Amino acid sequence: MGTTEELAEFCVRTSYADLPANVLHAAKRDVINVLGVSIYASRDPSLSILLSLFEAEGGRERATVWGSNVRTGLQNAALANGYLAHIEDYDDTHFPTVLHPSAPTVPAAWAIAESGGRSGADLLAAVALGIEASCRISLAVHPWHYDAGWHITGTMGVFGGAIAAGKLLGLDAAGLVACLGIAGSQAAGVREAFGSMTKPFHAGNAARSGVVAALLAQGGFTATDRILEGRRGVAAVLSAESDLTRVTDGLGERWEIFNNGLKPYACGVVNHPLIDACIELRKGGGFDLGAIEAIEADVHPLVLELVNLPEPKVGLEGKFSVQHCIAVGLTDGAAYPEQFSDAKVQDPALIDLRRKVRLVKNESFGEDEAVVRLTIDGRKVDKHVEHATGAPENPLSDDQLNAKFLTLTAPVLGGTGAEALLAKLWRLEEQTELAGPLEA
Amino acid sequence: MGTTEELAEFCVRTSYADLPANVLHAAKRDVINVLGVSIYASRDPSLSILLSLFEAEGGRERATVWGSNVRTGLQNAALANGYLAHIEDYDDTHFPTVLHPSAPTVPAAWAIAESGGRSGADLLAAVALGIEASCRISLAVHPWHYDAGWHITGTMGVFGGAIAAGKLLGLDAAGLVACLGIAGSQAAGVREAFGSMTKPFHAGNAARSGVVAALLAQGGFTATDRILEGRRGVAAVLSAESDLTRVTDGLGERWEIFNNGLKPYACGVVNHPLIDACIELRKGGGFDLGAIEAIEADVHPLVLELVNLPEPKVGLEGKFSVQHCIAVGLTDGAAYPEQFSDAKVQDPALIDLRRKVRLVKNESFGEDEAVVRLTIDGRKVDKHVEHATGAPENPLSDDQLNAKFLTLTAPVLGGTGAEALLAKLWRLEEQTELAGPLEA
Repeated sequence: MGTTEELAEFCVRTSYADLPANVLHAAKRDVINVLGVSIYASRDPSLSILLSLFEAEGGRERATVWGSNVRTGLQNAALANGYLAHIEDYDDTHFPTVLHPSAPTVPAAWAIAESGGRSGADLLAAVALGIEASCRISLAVHPWHYDAGWHITGTMGVFGGAIAAGKLLGLDAAGLVACLGIAGSQAAGVREAFGSMTKPFHAGNAARSGVVAALLAQGGFTATDRILEGRRGVAAVLSAESDLTRVTDGLGERWEIFNNGLKPYACGVVNHPLIDACIELRKGGGFDLGAIEAIEADVHPLVLELVNLPEPKVGLEGKFSVQHCIAVGLTDGAAYPEQFSDAKVQDPALIDLRRKVRLVKNESFGEDEAVVRLTIDGRKVDKHVEHATGAPENPLSDDQLNAKFLTLTAPVLGGTGAEALLAKLWRLEEQTELAGPLEA
Repeated sequence: MGTTEELAEFCVRTSYADLPANVLHAAKRDVINVLGVSIYASRDPSLSILLSLFEAEGGRERATVWGSNVRTGLQNAALANGYLAHIEDYDDTHFPTVLHPSAPTVPAAWAIAESGGRSGADLLAAVALGIEASCRISLAVHPWHYDAGWHITGTMGVFGGAIAAGKLLGLDAAGLVACLGIAGSQAAGVREAFGSMTKPFHAGNAARSGVVAALLAQGGFTATDRILEGRRGVAAVLSAESDLTRVTDGLGERWEIFNNGLKPYACGVVNHPLIDACIELRKGGGFDLGAIEAIEADVHPLVLELVNLPEPKVGLEGKFSVQHCIAVGLTDGAAYPEQFSDAKVQDPALIDLRRKVRLVKNESFGEDEAVVRLTIDGRKVDKHVEHATGAPENPLSDDQLNAKFLTLTAPVLGGTGAEALLAKLWRLEEQTELAGPLEA
């Protein structure tokens, strides 16, 4: 049996009841996280460009654009929600490959589940399988594929959307093989797009392509049955080298979804251990911010290379300023999007703190490791973080996820609405028929 | 100025009035050819899979699916028409690269032109520029790109659709650069799909992606301004080597559209010189088919490798049987789709002729060269074809194109309808406002 068929067979025979509780819990966390991020991002002005396109094309109102009152077609909803999920770069990361698996997978699943009145349990199973499949396919082409310039979330993410959508449509193994074949023929996205709206568009396009693949396969559209392993298939064509055993080895026994980390802070990942350390020091308390005389940070060399920006001027620059990240960690104990507003970056108290930061390179540190050392009235306190929050070794706790979700969604849904939706999402498996996520 | 910007600037400043008459004539021939092929293909049962998807999604009726009464959204129409254009593998070929440029370009242009009420002259200019651009971009990555396993019609074809759609929307240079950037982020299609419906889907998907790119760019969506030449752009990522000077060298002076050949016969291209020879021998006349004693053919080695199938059983096999191609060439003087029906392939008179064919390999022949030698009542006649019809050195004549168009479309539109549409298409530049192609 080929790799594609073996993967499809596994996904077809595995249902909600077969999935381990911790896998389903991880899938539910991924859904909650990606919805929180997307609902927050729904206020981004660029969404209107997509919505105008949908409006001009028209169509039946079958699935929801998260965070809005817009209902649109399945393809459109998958495109818009995948776009929203990734626009803030605040979703999740499969640490071994840098795939962001939820952005292409959850929107594809949601569109099919919502329009088809499928249950919350079915949605969770489809998401778990889609994320598992796309992480494994990504592993098979890592690191060659990303290094060559591909945006793996666009290219390999499409298989997550396709599996999730195909599973929810009830495709049999032959159908799911065709679905993967059609999906692979739409695998796209180069890293040259980074820094533009086209980057999150890759995630949305992958979600939409997954939906298209599943619907066409359901209709009997034909495709190769060897899209992954074929001589001209995606592994061979989109990667200089590949190891397809990683797709299927230990399938159903070992779960890659546990290596998918939810992003705790709305900024570059190398800042994260430093923010962790500052939040811990702040919790320890016993000092006045104004009394801090010096801030010394031992950091991985990448910090100096990527985020050494002592005088950021606008919010976006703040995300790439470790000095600003340290300052907001100490001051607010948080690094949500509001900590990276223009006003925050221009706050005199934060500017003052940023100027006290001194960075010391530590070559022996892991990428998610840091020490922050404060001098307060001559006294020194310090905190060593070995693994930043959000890494597989130190996952975001459910409480931290709840706080992230509520902080992100309250401005859009109101506090009560955000609480109600969160409670509903934690009980997702009890819902017999899924509706728009805002109808809490 | 970068390659992408230079190409975009050229396309923006070049309008119908600036294009040489022979370039516009070539573009018009490409439109007529691809419409003929697509209208014929509209009877293919697989179209219903796409139409069902459109039906379920709904939407405004803004553009026509060729050969049908269906009007649908711009993206859908581009997808369906690009699919139809390539499903029979009977469209056109840019000989230097094996790109099929019309299938992704003309449907994208038509959808925008029809819905926006643009003129026939604007359509022709947009098609000429889209084909020129996609052929040149394909040249820049040829032969490495196709050899690596990419279906160049899906990957590089998308730029043809994007340029044509963007030009018709009146994008400025910055807009067209963004349009190319968004298009390149959707460049997709691997050759593993060959032999399935997903192959022509690549062409349709490229057409649709071109439309999406143009509409998003019009709305202000941002993208890289170096999608072609960037370090992580399509040339670098989708090809082991590339020569980007081929995109812009002699732009406006030398035209690649002249290297785009229209396919005369509905079968594998290596059969074409043999069919040419048989049609010529038949025209010479003076013999009865039953009196043919022997048929000897001198052929390029690829003929023996690819199409040496003396006893085909069904129509599709007939397309890959040089013996059948010779037999229909002598008998019918044609090689339209009807010459590759099951009934034709099983016709006893043709079976008899096929058995008389003897192939002789000639290592010195070009791929589009052949000799056919008949022995009739002891007398010998022969015909040497140096360049098959449809090759750049021996293009399909306008009369041959008309015959192809009418043969393909009469069964769908009726003889009168086919004649009327053809006449209208030859006067395309006189139309001030384009409507569906069937409203002749």
